[in-house]
Amino acid sequence: MTDPAFQDYYPDDYSHCYGCGRLNAHGLQIKSRWEGDSSVCSFQPAAHHMAIPGYVYGGLIASLIDCHGTGTAAAAAYRRDGRAMNTDPPYRYLTASLHVDYLKPTPLGPPLELRGTVTEIQGRKAVIGIEVRADGVVTARGTVVAVQMPDHMRPAVTG
Amino acid sequence: MTDPAFQDYYPDDYSHCYGCGRLNAHGLQIKSRWEGDSSVCSFQPAAHHMAIPGYVYGGLIASLIDCHGTGTAAAAAYRRDGRAMNTDPPYRYLTASLHVDYLKPTPLGPPLELRGTVTEIQGRKAVIGIEVRADGVVTARGTVVAVQMPDHMRPAVTG
Repeated sequence: MTDPAFQDYYPDDYSHCYGCGRLNAHGLQIKSRWEGDSSVCSFQPAAHHMAIPGYVYGGLIASLIDCHGTGTAAAAAYRRDGRAMNTDPPYRYLTASLHVDYLKPTPLGPPLELRGTVTEIQGRKAVIGIEVRADGVVTARGTVVAVQMPDHMRPAVTG
Repeated sequence: MTDPAFQDYYPDDYSHCYGCGRLNAHGLQIKSRWEGDSSVCSFQPAAHHMAIPGYVYGGLIASLIDCHGTGTAAAAAYRRDGRAMNTDPPYRYLTASLHVDYLKPTPLGPPLELRGTVTEIQGRKAVIGIEVRADGVVTARGTVVAVQMPDHMRPAVTG
Protein backbone atom coordinates (compact mmCIF):
# COMPACT_ATOMS: atom_id res chain seq x y z
CA MET A 1 0.00 0.00 0.00
CA THR A 2 2.75 2.46 -0.83
CA ASP A 3 1.31 3.63 -4.15
CA PRO A 4 0.06 7.22 -4.08
CA ALA A 5 -3.50 7.50 -2.78
CA PHE A 6 -6.34 9.07 -4.76
CA GLN A 7 -6.06 12.11 -2.51
CA ASP A 8 -2.34 12.51 -3.21
CA TYR A 9 -3.26 13.45 -6.78
CA TYR A 10 -5.65 16.23 -5.79
CA PRO A 11 -4.27 19.64 -6.80
CA ASP A 12 -3.17 21.80 -3.89
CA ASP A 13 -6.29 23.94 -4.02
CA TYR A 14 -8.48 20.86 -3.51
CA SER A 15 -6.28 19.54 -0.71
CA HIS A 16 -7.56 21.50 2.29
CA CYS A 17 -10.56 19.27 3.01
CA TYR A 18 -10.95 18.42 6.70
CA GLY A 19 -11.62 14.80 5.81
CA CYS A 20 -9.09 14.08 3.09
CA GLY A 21 -6.91 17.11 2.39
CA ARG A 22 -3.19 16.37 2.70
CA LEU A 23 -2.67 20.08 3.43
CA ASN A 24 -5.19 20.28 6.30
CA ALA A 25 -3.00 19.87 9.39
CA HIS A 26 -6.07 19.59 11.65
CA GLY A 27 -7.91 17.14 9.42
CA LEU A 28 -8.29 13.38 9.12
CA GLN A 29 -6.07 13.05 6.01
CA ILE A 30 -7.72 9.85 4.85
CA LYS A 31 -6.15 7.90 1.98
CA SER A 32 -7.97 5.73 -0.55
CA ARG A 33 -6.53 3.28 -3.06
CA TRP A 34 -7.78 0.70 -5.55
CA GLU A 35 -7.66 -2.98 -4.80
CA GLY A 36 -8.98 -4.38 -8.04
CA ASP A 37 -12.47 -2.96 -8.48
CA SER A 38 -12.81 -2.00 -4.81
CA SER A 39 -11.47 1.15 -3.21
CA VAL A 40 -9.94 0.68 0.20
CA CYS A 41 -9.19 3.10 3.02
CA SER A 42 -7.68 2.26 6.39
CA PHE A 43 -8.13 4.75 9.20
CA GLN A 44 -6.95 4.69 12.79
CA PRO A 45 -9.42 6.57 15.01
CA ALA A 46 -7.91 8.65 17.81
CA ALA A 47 -8.91 8.18 21.43
CA HIS A 48 -11.03 11.33 21.27
CA HIS A 49 -13.06 10.01 18.32
CA MET A 50 -15.39 8.48 20.86
CA ALA A 51 -19.18 8.19 21.09
CA ILE A 52 -19.35 6.60 24.51
CA PRO A 53 -16.40 4.84 26.15
CA GLY A 54 -15.31 1.93 23.96
CA TYR A 55 -17.11 2.94 20.77
CA VAL A 56 -16.31 5.06 17.70
CA TYR A 57 -18.16 8.31 17.08
CA GLY A 58 -20.75 7.89 14.32
CA GLY A 59 -19.99 11.30 12.84
CA LEU A 60 -16.43 10.17 12.23
CA ILE A 61 -17.72 7.11 10.39
CA ALA A 62 -19.98 9.36 8.30
CA SER A 63 -17.01 11.62 7.53
CA LEU A 64 -14.82 8.70 6.43
CA ILE A 65 -17.60 7.37 4.21
CA ASP A 66 -18.11 10.84 2.74
CA CYS A 67 -14.51 11.44 1.70
CA HIS A 68 -13.80 7.86 0.70
CA GLY A 69 -16.92 8.06 -1.45
CA THR A 70 -16.05 11.25 -3.28
CA GLY A 71 -12.46 10.10 -3.71
CA THR A 72 -13.64 6.81 -5.18
CA ALA A 73 -16.01 8.70 -7.50
CA ALA A 74 -13.14 10.80 -8.85
CA ALA A 75 -10.85 7.81 -9.27
CA ALA A 76 -13.63 5.93 -11.05
CA ALA A 77 -14.14 8.82 -13.47
CA TYR A 78 -10.47 8.76 -14.44
CA ARG A 79 -10.71 5.00 -14.97
CA ARG A 80 -13.84 5.32 -17.07
CA ASP A 81 -12.15 7.88 -19.27
CA GLY A 82 -8.89 5.98 -19.53
CA ARG A 83 -6.99 8.84 -17.92
CA ALA A 84 -4.20 8.80 -15.36
CA MET A 85 -5.02 10.62 -12.12
CA ASN A 86 -2.20 13.10 -12.59
CA THR A 87 -3.65 14.51 -15.83
CA ASP A 88 -5.62 17.72 -16.28
CA PRO A 89 -8.31 18.81 -15.87
CA PRO A 90 -8.69 17.36 -12.35
CA TYR A 91 -11.88 15.48 -11.52
CA ARG A 92 -13.33 16.40 -8.15
CA TYR A 93 -16.69 15.31 -6.79
CA LEU A 94 -19.03 16.83 -4.24
CA THR A 95 -21.44 14.90 -2.05
CA ALA A 96 -25.06 15.29 -3.11
CA SER A 97 -26.32 12.87 -0.47
CA LEU A 98 -24.89 10.66 2.21
CA HIS A 99 -26.63 7.74 3.87
CA VAL A 100 -25.20 5.64 6.69
CA ASP A 101 -26.75 2.60 8.37
CA TYR A 102 -25.07 1.88 11.69
CA LEU A 103 -25.46 -1.88 11.92
CA LYS A 104 -23.76 -2.34 15.26
CA PRO A 105 -21.53 -0.36 17.60
CA THR A 106 -18.01 0.10 16.18
CA PRO A 107 -15.29 -0.73 18.74
CA LEU A 108 -12.78 2.04 19.37
CA GLY A 109 -9.25 0.66 19.09
CA PRO A 110 -8.56 -1.24 15.87
CA PRO A 111 -8.07 0.55 12.55
CA LEU A 112 -11.24 0.84 10.49
CA GLU A 113 -11.29 -0.52 6.96
CA LEU A 114 -13.58 1.08 4.40
CA ARG A 115 -14.26 -0.75 1.17
CA GLY A 116 -16.02 1.07 -1.66
CA THR A 117 -17.81 -0.21 -4.74
CA VAL A 118 -18.85 1.92 -7.69
CA THR A 119 -22.50 1.08 -8.21
CA GLU A 120 -23.14 3.79 -10.83
CA ILE A 121 -21.05 6.27 -12.76
CA GLN A 122 -22.71 8.17 -15.54
CA GLY A 123 -22.24 11.71 -16.81
CA ARG A 124 -21.42 13.89 -13.82
CA LYS A 125 -22.96 11.55 -11.23
CA ALA A 126 -21.54 8.59 -9.34
CA VAL A 127 -22.97 6.33 -6.63
CA ILE A 128 -20.57 4.58 -4.29
CA GLY A 129 -21.49 1.88 -1.78
CA ILE A 130 -19.18 1.56 1.21
CA GLU A 131 -18.75 -1.00 3.98
CA VAL A 132 -16.95 -0.16 7.22
CA ARG A 133 -15.23 -2.97 9.11
CA ALA A 134 -13.54 -3.18 12.50
CA ASP A 135 -11.63 -6.39 13.25
CA GLY A 136 -13.13 -7.82 10.07
CA VAL A 137 -16.75 -7.27 11.16
CA VAL A 138 -19.00 -4.96 9.10
CA THR A 139 -20.33 -2.37 11.54
CA ALA A 140 -21.70 0.26 9.13
CA ARG A 141 -22.82 0.57 5.52
CA GLY A 142 -22.96 3.80 3.58
CA THR A 143 -24.00 5.19 0.23
CA VAL A 144 -22.58 8.36 -1.27
CA VAL A 145 -24.22 10.05 -4.24
CA ALA A 146 -21.51 12.27 -5.68
CA VAL A 147 -21.62 14.84 -8.45
CA GLN A 148 -18.77 16.37 -10.35
CA MET A 149 -17.87 19.78 -8.97
CA PRO A 150 -19.37 22.60 -11.06
CA ASP A 151 -16.77 24.77 -12.78
CA HIS A 152 -17.84 27.90 -10.88
CA MET A 153 -16.82 26.31 -7.58
CA ARG A 154 -13.30 25.45 -8.63
CA PRO A 155 -10.66 27.36 -6.76
CA ALA A 156 -9.37 30.08 -9.09
CA VAL A 157 -5.80 28.80 -9.43
CA THR A 158 -6.82 25.44 -10.81
CA GLY A 159 -9.97 26.58 -12.63
CA MET B 1 -30.37 30.98 25.08
CA THR B 2 -28.74 30.63 28.50
CA ASP B 3 -30.85 27.69 29.69
CA PRO B 4 -28.90 24.44 30.05
CA ALA B 5 -28.63 22.54 26.78
CA PHE B 6 -29.85 18.96 26.32
CA GLN B 7 -26.22 17.84 26.41
CA ASP B 8 -25.58 19.61 29.72
CA TYR B 9 -27.90 17.06 31.35
CA TYR B 10 -26.01 14.02 30.04
CA PRO B 11 -24.35 12.12 32.90
CA ASP B 12 -20.57 12.38 32.90
CA ASP B 13 -20.10 8.92 31.42
CA TYR B 14 -22.18 9.90 28.39
CA SER B 15 -20.36 13.21 27.99
CA HIS B 16 -17.23 12.16 26.11
CA CYS B 17 -18.80 12.14 22.64
CA TYR B 18 -16.67 13.85 20.00
CA GLY B 19 -19.72 15.63 18.64
CA CYS B 20 -21.57 16.68 21.78
CA GLY B 21 -19.67 15.68 24.90
CA ARG B 22 -18.99 18.58 27.24
CA LEU B 23 -16.03 16.59 28.61
CA ASN B 24 -14.37 15.96 25.21
CA ALA B 25 -11.79 18.74 24.98
CA HIS B 26 -11.03 17.88 21.34
CA GLY B 27 -14.66 17.62 20.29
CA LEU B 28 -17.30 19.89 18.79
CA GLN B 29 -19.27 20.34 22.04
CA ILE B 30 -22.52 21.12 20.27
CA LYS B 31 -25.47 22.39 22.30
CA SER B 32 -29.16 21.84 21.55
CA ARG B 33 -32.18 23.51 23.11
CA TRP B 34 -35.95 23.61 22.59
CA GLU B 35 -37.61 26.53 20.88
CA GLY B 36 -41.24 25.51 21.17
CA ASP B 37 -41.55 22.21 19.34
CA SER B 38 -38.29 22.69 17.42
CA SER B 39 -34.83 21.89 18.71
CA VAL B 40 -32.19 24.43 17.80
CA CYS B 41 -28.40 24.25 17.69
CA SER B 42 -26.04 27.01 16.64
CA PHE B 43 -22.51 26.01 15.69
CA GLN B 44 -19.57 28.12 14.56
CA PRO B 45 -17.36 26.12 12.18
CA ALA B 46 -13.61 26.64 12.54
CA ALA B 47 -11.43 27.68 9.61
CA HIS B 48 -10.14 24.12 9.28
CA HIS B 49 -13.68 22.71 8.90
CA MET B 50 -13.29 23.27 5.19
CA ALA B 51 -14.25 21.19 2.15
CA ILE B 52 -12.72 23.48 -0.48
CA PRO B 53 -11.84 27.11 0.18
CA GLY B 54 -14.99 29.00 1.11
CA TYR B 55 -17.20 26.03 1.92
CA VAL B 56 -17.98 23.92 4.99
CA TYR B 57 -16.91 20.27 5.14
CA GLY B 58 -19.87 17.95 4.55
CA GLY B 59 -18.69 15.50 7.20
CA LEU B 60 -18.96 18.26 9.80
CA ILE B 61 -22.54 18.92 8.72
CA ALA B 62 -23.29 15.19 9.01
CA SER B 63 -21.73 15.16 12.49
CA LEU B 64 -23.80 18.12 13.66
CA ILE B 65 -26.98 16.52 12.32
CA ASP B 66 -26.08 13.24 14.01
CA CYS B 67 -25.58 14.67 17.52
CA HIS B 68 -28.36 17.24 17.28
CA GLY B 69 -30.62 14.39 16.18
CA THR B 70 -29.80 12.00 19.03
CA GLY B 71 -29.93 14.87 21.52
CA THR B 72 -33.36 15.88 20.24
CA ALA B 73 -34.52 12.26 20.45
CA ALA B 74 -33.51 12.06 24.11
CA ALA B 75 -35.11 15.40 24.97
CA ALA B 76 -38.28 14.34 23.18
CA ALA B 77 -38.43 11.12 25.20
CA TYR B 78 -38.28 13.08 28.47
CA ARG B 79 -41.06 15.35 27.19
CA ARG B 80 -43.19 12.43 26.11
CA ASP B 81 -42.85 10.85 29.53
CA GLY B 82 -43.43 14.09 31.41
CA ARG B 83 -40.00 13.87 33.01
CA ALA B 84 -37.42 16.56 33.66
CA MET B 85 -34.09 15.99 31.93
CA ASN B 86 -32.20 15.83 35.22
CA THR B 87 -34.10 12.76 36.44
CA ASP B 88 -32.95 9.13 36.39
CA PRO B 89 -32.65 6.87 34.56
CA PRO B 90 -31.02 8.95 31.81
CA TYR B 91 -32.32 8.61 28.26
CA ARG B 92 -29.60 8.32 25.65
CA TYR B 93 -30.09 7.51 21.99
CA LEU B 94 -27.82 5.95 19.39
CA THR B 95 -27.97 6.61 15.67
CA ALA B 96 -29.43 3.73 13.69
CA SER B 97 -29.26 5.61 10.40
CA LEU B 98 -28.26 9.03 9.16
CA HIS B 99 -29.25 10.61 5.87
CA VAL B 100 -28.08 13.99 4.61
CA ASP B 101 -29.07 15.78 1.41
CA TYR B 102 -26.60 18.53 0.58
CA LEU B 103 -28.84 20.97 -1.23
CA LYS B 104 -26.22 23.60 -1.96
CA PRO B 105 -22.69 24.43 -0.85
CA THR B 106 -22.60 25.75 2.72
CA PRO B 107 -20.54 28.94 3.04
CA LEU B 108 -17.73 28.81 5.60
CA GLY B 109 -17.92 31.83 7.86
CA PRO B 110 -21.33 32.40 9.46
CA PRO B 111 -22.58 30.23 12.32
CA LEU B 112 -24.73 27.31 11.20
CA GLU B 113 -28.21 26.93 12.60
CA LEU B 114 -29.71 23.47 12.89
CA ARG B 115 -33.42 23.13 13.49
CA GLY B 116 -34.85 19.73 14.39
CA THR B 117 -38.38 18.39 14.28
CA VAL B 118 -39.54 15.18 15.93
CA THR B 119 -41.36 13.32 13.16
CA GLU B 120 -41.81 10.09 15.12
CA ILE B 121 -41.22 8.93 18.68
CA GLN B 122 -42.52 5.56 19.68
CA GLY B 123 -41.16 2.91 22.01
CA ARG B 124 -37.38 2.99 21.80
CA LYS B 125 -37.26 4.64 18.36
CA ALA B 126 -37.33 8.27 17.28
CA VAL B 127 -37.06 9.95 13.89
CA ILE B 128 -35.79 13.51 13.75
CA GLY B 129 -35.81 15.76 10.66
CA ILE B 130 -33.18 18.51 10.65
CA GLU B 131 -32.58 21.57 8.50
CA VAL B 132 -29.20 23.30 8.37
CA ARG B 133 -29.09 27.01 7.59
CA ALA B 134 -26.26 29.44 6.88
CA ASP B 135 -27.19 33.10 6.71
CA GLY B 136 -30.84 32.02 6.82
CA VAL B 137 -30.57 29.81 3.73
CA VAL B 138 -31.25 26.07 4.02
CA THR B 139 -28.16 24.34 2.63
CA ALA B 140 -28.69 20.78 3.91
CA ARG B 141 -31.48 18.57 5.18
CA GLY B 142 -30.99 15.50 7.33
CA THR B 143 -32.89 12.65 8.91
CA VAL B 144 -31.71 10.77 11.97
CA VAL B 145 -33.30 7.49 12.99
CA ALA B 146 -32.33 7.07 16.64
CA VAL B 147 -32.84 4.18 19.04
CA GLN B 148 -32.61 4.18 22.78
CA MET B 149 -29.26 2.85 23.95
CA PRO B 150 -29.48 -0.79 25.02
CA ASP B 151 -28.78 -1.32 28.70
CA HIS B 152 -25.69 -3.47 28.02
CA MET B 153 -23.95 -0.53 26.35
CA ARG B 154 -24.39 1.84 29.28
CA PRO B 155 -21.16 2.81 30.91
CA ALA B 156 -20.90 0.86 34.13
CA VAL B 157 -21.04 3.79 36.52
CA THR B 158 -24.40 5.00 35.30
CA GLY B 159 -25.85 1.61 34.36
